Amino acid sequence: MSEVKNTSFEDCLQKLMESLEVSLYEEATTQLANLHSAEIARLLEAIPPKERVILWSNIDTGTQGDILKDLSENVRTQLFSEMSVDSIVEATEGLDMDDLADIVPDLPESALHNLLLTLDHKHRDHLKRVLSYPEDSAGGLMNIDIITVRDGITVRTVIRYLRLLKEMPIDTDQVFVVDRAYKYLGAIHISTLLTNEAQQNIEPLINKTLKPIIAQTPEKEVAHLFEQRDLISAPVVDENNQLIGRITIDDVVDVIRDEAEHSVMSMAGLDEEDDVFAPVMQSSKRRSIWLGVNLVTVFIAVFFISLFEATLQEKIALAILMPVVASMGGIAGTQTLILVTRGIATGRITNSNLKVLMNKEVAIGLLNGLIWALVIGVATHLWFADILLSMVIALAIVVNLIFAAFSGVILPSLLIKFKIDPALAGGVILTTITDVIGFVAFLGLASLVV
Amino acid sequence: MSEVKNTSFEDCLQKLMESLEVSLYEEATTQLANLHSAEIARLLEAIPPKERVILWSNIDTGTQGDILKDLSENVRTQLFSEMSVDSIVEATEGLDMDDLADIVPDLPESALHNLLLTLDHKHRDHLKRVLSYPEDSAGGLMNIDIITVRDGITVRTVIRYLRLLKEMPIDTDQVFVVDRAYKYLGAIHISTLLTNEAQQNIEPLINKTLKPIIAQTPEKEVAHLFEQRDLISAPVVDENNQLIGRITIDDVVDVIRDEAEHSVMSMAGLDEEDDVFAPVMQSSKRRSIWLGVNLVTVFIAVFFISLFEATLQEKIALAILMPVVASMGGIAGTQTLILVTRGIATGRITNSNLKVLMNKEVAIGLLNGLIWALVIGVATHLWFADILLSMVIALAIVVNLIFAAFSGVILPSLLIKFKIDPALAGGVILTTITDVIGFVAFLGLASLVV
Repeated sequence: MSEVKNTSFEDCLQKLMESLEVSLYEEATTQLANLHSAEIARLLEAIPPKERVILWSNIDTGTQGDILKDLSENVRTQLFSEMSVDSIVEATEGLDMDDLADIVPDLPESALHNLLLTLDHKHRDHLKRVLSYPEDSAGGLMNIDIITVRDGITVRTVIRYLRLLKEMPIDTDQVFVVDRAYKYLGAIHISTLLTNEAQQNIEPLINKTLKPIIAQTPEKEVAHLFEQRDLISAPVVDENNQLIGRITIDDVVDVIRDEAEHSVMSMAGLDEEDDVFAPVMQSSKRRSIWLGVNLVTVFIAVFFISLFEATLQEKIALAILMPVVASMGGIAGTQTLILVTRGIATGRITNSNLKVLMNKEVAIGLLNGLIWALVIGVATHLWFADILLSMVIALAIVVNLIFAAFSGVILPSLLIKFKIDPALAGGVILTTITDVIGFVAFLGLASLVV
Repeated sequence: MSEVKNTSFEDCLQKLMESLEVSLYEEATTQLANLHSAEIARLLEAIPPKERVILWSNIDTGTQGDILKDLSENVRTQLFSEMSVDSIVEATEGLDMDDLADIVPDLPESALHNLLLTLDHKHRDHLKRVLSYPEDSAGGLMNIDIITVRDGITVRTVIRYLRLLKEMPIDTDQVFVVDRAYKYLGAIHISTLLTNEAQQNIEPLINKTLKPIIAQTPEKEVAHLFEQRDLISAPVVDENNQLIGRITIDDVVDVIRDEAEHSVMSMAGLDEEDDVFAPVMQSSKRRSIWLGVNLVTVFIAVFFISLFEATLQEKIALAILMPVVASMGGIAGTQTLILVTRGIATGRITNSNLKVLMNKEVAIGLLNGLIWALVIGVATHLWFADILLSMVIALAIVVNLIFAAFSGVILPSLLIKFKIDPALAGGVILTTITDVIGFVAFLGLASLVV
């Protein structure tokens, strides 16, 4: 039972790090021996790349295959680059077709060629079919190991057929019913086969409400459907309604996790696939680009400050207080932005209800603007004993919070229209807007009265 | 097949909003008639609260129960508050025990009392057992509808028993094997029962590697285990290894989604359970608190600016440029912070590898600091033609980016030690640090040389 405790993973990792620090690679390899492949994958992701490669070379190729499917893309690619073509083929040839399909895009060209040669005709065809669909579509997610039966037979016939098969593909929870042309008719949950009498015709047992997913459906929509309907597995058909595979929930869980990770990582210009211990140069590069984007936006904001140089010169308190206005707008705007971006991603917000939402968010902006304008105004007066300055900053806060709400609602759908990921670009554009509006409102108003 | 398309949801919502705008409530209710309960739940979440209540009152209580379990906590509570005790009981009495257990915490006291009275002895005991575990533990997640068999019997006996049951609980993929004292021994996937001969003893078919989850296990660890092992369902035992229920993946998916949502929502002080259309007052309050927290931190930062009033007075370019230093540090620090917070949440980062990570992140900070210091230094010189100012800002950038990396690595584990959620407080504390260090480094260095 120990493996459900996270602490046991921590213990494992600590022991492993201790062995690696003193280069006891054999001991480290022994420590991995009794672990589940998924656990080994996690440990490999948690150690620095150099040690990772040495440890990896000590794991036998039989185990490597199972570990590979659980690794993140970047770590997998790193390990492939250190392996010979022969050992890649050896490690991967025993994998399930859908796992193999996930790995294939990361394989070096020569290894892929040799791997295809090891597959028999049937499996090669299957792999090609899965690969013919985009990786992020239902076709890319699907597993082609399905059990199909024809309609019009009895439960006994189905059970006899299943006993002939000796075992069912892993996680099979239903058999699919197809017609003569292999068109999808419905599904029978296998528990139904067990609870009904042998002489029963399967016809009334077929669940016809389980609609098939078309192979071209984007994986996000597939995930949505699984979540909404609490599905465990679902049939996949091609454009002619011919059954070609099934999607099981364990593959969908990865999509859900990745999609949600994506939002939080993107906000800082990070990639959810990033290896925590990627080489410094590799990590620097990606993040540096993001710092560069930010630099451009901050220079836009400071350009607007520079327009009020004379005013600042006259009243240095303005320079001290201006971050307050910008910052409050940034926070309020980000709240709206995240709410709207998540709402759009989860399908709760669409064009039809955006107007209602806009009214609500602007009302919140106005209300919070008034409350905090009062607080900030009083605080400013207590600090600088300057009633005019207090009024200017209070007004600037209200203006900025209203604009922040407005921008937070508009921006995501605007970015989507221009095919820009709002999770990636939303935050940085929004804070530029709130910075500029904050500085201009505050310093502009001040220039009129001081 | 249309329901897999997100666009169809958009169409539904648009039609619904159009009907609601002109108060055609009957037409709106008819539009919902043929939809899946999960879809109706989503539509209800996507419309304003006032229209939601009216529409809700038009839905018959039979359907209401199924919809309730798919609604978010806040929306559910809103609807309960508008319903009579009798109609709450009527709507909820037909629900599965585990769905009911999810809803119970949101029920008004009097409705809960009446509801318990409608349940038979067995169900009441079951519900009480589920409720005796924390909502966010394995016990709180579990379903108590399980099928158990004793060891030492044949496949035929099991199948005969199952046929007597007539049907299995929804999403049953395994039967559990227990001993005389109801202690858990292992599980048999129901597909195994179908592919083996009737006279076969079940003993060799029992999967003994599927370890049970102890009821007290936190739901996050349960989710982790399901993800790692690609589980569909798992047995739950009490501290005496007695079987008490099972967890199915559809409940775990919600945990995974919520956990991931939590990180992104918390960063802006939002609650992942928030109703997009919550009343203005309710939404304002929560967000206002967050703005207040931010105000305190920004006043800390501007206090440090005010220490350098004389220096600012002397060189107004400092006031114009200071946001650049603070902003670059904030972005770089946030990148590290999010990486580390996510790494800790997913278990890839623990105390054992934090030191290695620290070295890497500080190295990235130094490298990116040098690159952007150069760019910003040159830009500053071009703008203000002031070599001393350029050198000061360049140095301040390097200092701030190194400190930002350092804080980003340290902060999450420090906050966890003090039992503070890093997703909630990390960002705001970090940017306060980078603001203060940025302002002090930049203005402090400047005060030495101008």
